[in-house]
Amino acid sequence: MNYIEQLQQLLSREQVTTNEVLRTQHGKDESYHEPHLPDVVVFPKTAEEVSKIVILANDQRIPVVPFGLGTSLEGHVIPYKGGISLDLSMMNAVLEVRPDDFLVKVQPGVTRSQLNKELKKYGLFFSVDPGADATLGGMAATNASGTTSVRYGIMRDQVRDLEVVLANGDVIHTGGLAAKSSSGYHLNGLMVGSEGTLGVITELTLRVYGIPEKIIAGRATFETIQQAVDAVVSLKQAGIPMARIELVDKRSIEQVNFASDTNFPETPTLFLEFHGNEAGLKSDVIFATELLNDNGCIELAFEQDERARNQLWELRHNLAYTYIHSAPGKKLMSTDVVVPINSLPDAIQNSREKIESMEIDAGIVGHVGDGNYHILLMVDMESQEEIARAKELNEHVVEYALSLGGTCTGEHGVGLGKAKYQQQEHGAAYIWMKEIKRLLDPNNIMNPGKIFID
Amino acid sequence: MNYIEQLQQLLSREQVTTNEVLRTQHGKDESYHEPHLPDVVVFPKTAEEVSKIVILANDQRIPVVPFGLGTSLEGHVIPYKGGISLDLSMMNAVLEVRPDDFLVKVQPGVTRSQLNKELKKYGLFFSVDPGADATLGGMAATNASGTTSVRYGIMRDQVRDLEVVLANGDVIHTGGLAAKSSSGYHLNGLMVGSEGTLGVITELTLRVYGIPEKIIAGRATFETIQQAVDAVVSLKQAGIPMARIELVDKRSIEQVNFASDTNFPETPTLFLEFHGNEAGLKSDVIFATELLNDNGCIELAFEQDERARNQLWELRHNLAYTYIHSAPGKKLMSTDVVVPINSLPDAIQNSREKIESMEIDAGIVGHVGDGNYHILLMVDMESQEEIARAKELNEHVVEYALSLGGTCTGEHGVGLGKAKYQQQEHGAAYIWMKEIKRLLDPNNIMNPGKIFID
Repeated sequence: MNYIEQLQQLLSREQVTTNEVLRTQHGKDESYHEPHLPDVVVFPKTAEEVSKIVILANDQRIPVVPFGLGTSLEGHVIPYKGGISLDLSMMNAVLEVRPDDFLVKVQPGVTRSQLNKELKKYGLFFSVDPGADATLGGMAATNASGTTSVRYGIMRDQVRDLEVVLANGDVIHTGGLAAKSSSGYHLNGLMVGSEGTLGVITELTLRVYGIPEKIIAGRATFETIQQAVDAVVSLKQAGIPMARIELVDKRSIEQVNFASDTNFPETPTLFLEFHGNEAGLKSDVIFATELLNDNGCIELAFEQDERARNQLWELRHNLAYTYIHSAPGKKLMSTDVVVPINSLPDAIQNSREKIESMEIDAGIVGHVGDGNYHILLMVDMESQEEIARAKELNEHVVEYALSLGGTCTGEHGVGLGKAKYQQQEHGAAYIWMKEIKRLLDPNNIMNPGKIFID
Repeated sequence: MNYIEQLQQLLSREQVTTNEVLRTQHGKDESYHEPHLPDVVVFPKTAEEVSKIVILANDQRIPVVPFGLGTSLEGHVIPYKGGISLDLSMMNAVLEVRPDDFLVKVQPGVTRSQLNKELKKYGLFFSVDPGADATLGGMAATNASGTTSVRYGIMRDQVRDLEVVLANGDVIHTGGLAAKSSSGYHLNGLMVGSEGTLGVITELTLRVYGIPEKIIAGRATFETIQQAVDAVVSLKQAGIPMARIELVDKRSIEQVNFASDTNFPETPTLFLEFHGNEAGLKSDVIFATELLNDNGCIELAFEQDERARNQLWELRHNLAYTYIHSAPGKKLMSTDVVVPINSLPDAIQNSREKIESMEIDAGIVGHVGDGNYHILLMVDMESQEEIARAKELNEHVVEYALSLGGTCTGEHGVGLGKAKYQQQEHGAAYIWMKEIKRLLDPNNIMNPGKIFID
């Protein structure tokens, strides 16, 4: 009996499939990385089932690749060595909301919009908002972040506890319900961002926040990126507690106008948001206006109305998808470096010059309050030349960020695409990361080939 | 040639001492844990020297116990197995302030007050404030926190990068200068709170903050602890961004009045602080006043003046020391549990009943916004009965917190005192923590006997 038949015996028949269409769906993500099919797609319903699957896989050295919704951007969910695609979509329950403790317990297949819909009933929200409506398990696996991280923190900051199934089948908890702890080693932090290479996340306890009393969003346009980024540095230095500070460059504003019914001035723009009480916000907005104008802001528009605000952020969140939809047949490549905030104008300028010198069509957007920016470009995967040029650009941007003490990936994760920079970025620590991987997964069955080049 | 002579050859003579007075100083901390002398005290000046010392120690299986200022509260720095007390006080330089990046690079022997003195020149401050003026290396090693953690986060949240010397002499960096990263495994989080059991911290890059435009402190008195804690839960639920919310119980207010020239009403009290812009704070204070009054606040006093504010927080920070000074010959025991915020009134009530039923003289103070509270009591170390009673109380409080999903230590760390609760708190994860320890320190030379019971 082969291992797929054994899996079918272990679970029910409909939880284990070799259907070609499903395998194809589970052989790709949203990025330019080449697809590769798993042997089988398995849909567990409980941590116990995950544990049984992993024990079987570990015994027989079968790769196990966790799969949420396939929105990863560095090939994380692509099973390059075949094996099992472990689809967690049947584990999608919001298990418990503890509004007075500002905590929620969810299964890994819950999406961020599903969670926020549930939390709204309690006047609460979950803060992390990557572009995709990803699953929370996937977001924890890649240590996702987004537009609000400058205020509320990244995925790692929200995780109080994870239930994780390790390669040997052990089911562990990495934390607890306490708001802080100095007890034992911080396995929460280690597991968040480990991209399925150390274990499978089967439950998450997350921090949530009260919906702010008052929210004001704004749009500020500039003649140059330099001015826009200088304005961000000024806002940050002034200590104005911005909830969101997003840079959208000229090319990307053109894309927004092209893909929606907006008519924004086609020039570098900051999308801003302030959270707080009415009086405080009023004061923040006055101060921010002054600083934006000092840095050459041409036009400044504020939105207090919820619908208008939501529309603004929907445009921002959907930007990558509009690039994808506008270039059928091509695949998205997004760079993802972070540099120290004060080096941001210089780094973006350097990237823009490289883009122009290479005559590439690419937009830049960024969570500039964190020093994180993305270059978005569409790549024709049939053209070796286009692929090579995109890779050259990515490499240039990463090398420049690393030379400033930055990181090759702020929120998309390593996956396959950033594996080759790990040794350079982490130096002597890289060997110890590999040792930790070997300790927890001696047979290298957990998402093999990701983070580390075998 | 014995290992001490070898150390003297490796470094200079004055960096290696077996002087009885110095060994005695390095054989204790500020807690009730029994002293034990190291064989030798060594004062390295560079990471390279630390690496040489550790390589020698590893070869000969000599314990290495890092020592900052000896302010630990769970016996962390006490070398129970002899060996080397590695005193980092000669590595006490602020290496670099990057004001525009909100970063600072320091050596491990720099104290928090030393750093804040330097940062004040730039309009910046470092947020974490344990009771002691501890070294930043020690604070990272125990994952310290304090009164401002409810707003700015704990030590782990401030660490961008650590330089760490591992047991084999490797010098690694655990992070970088980026404000966020999804690159590689998060060794920052693993090293912070590892209490010298995985390596020696030789350099820290830390996040710093702009000094807020406006600060208002307040003191609110209540008839019962229950009312005070209910008020905290209300403030938190209302989303008022408190910078500090400290509970000081009746016994501790008596202690404050006894030890200083204050004449505060001797009743459960909240010490509060708000940071922000003038208009926002005004609004926050009005809203907070309403909620405090709704919860039975008897007297509410606000302080805007810097001197008066500083005095208030000095009283709070020195509280543990006033207990120590008022009971000469006795030693301090401080419990340190965290419970989910909504369980806090119940947990404190349970603790207070236990204290009273045991007829112990003890004060309760707490970082109640984080669900963290301490019972402070002085123990006569000559009396086996007093020691046994103190331990019984501590055990009761820990068991109760763990039953609520809390932690045995919120900020003091495990050291020796909380090692026996690790298995119970972490379950199946405990074995993996031990495995990580074994991986990084196979000869168990790095602060042996701490966190894990050998």
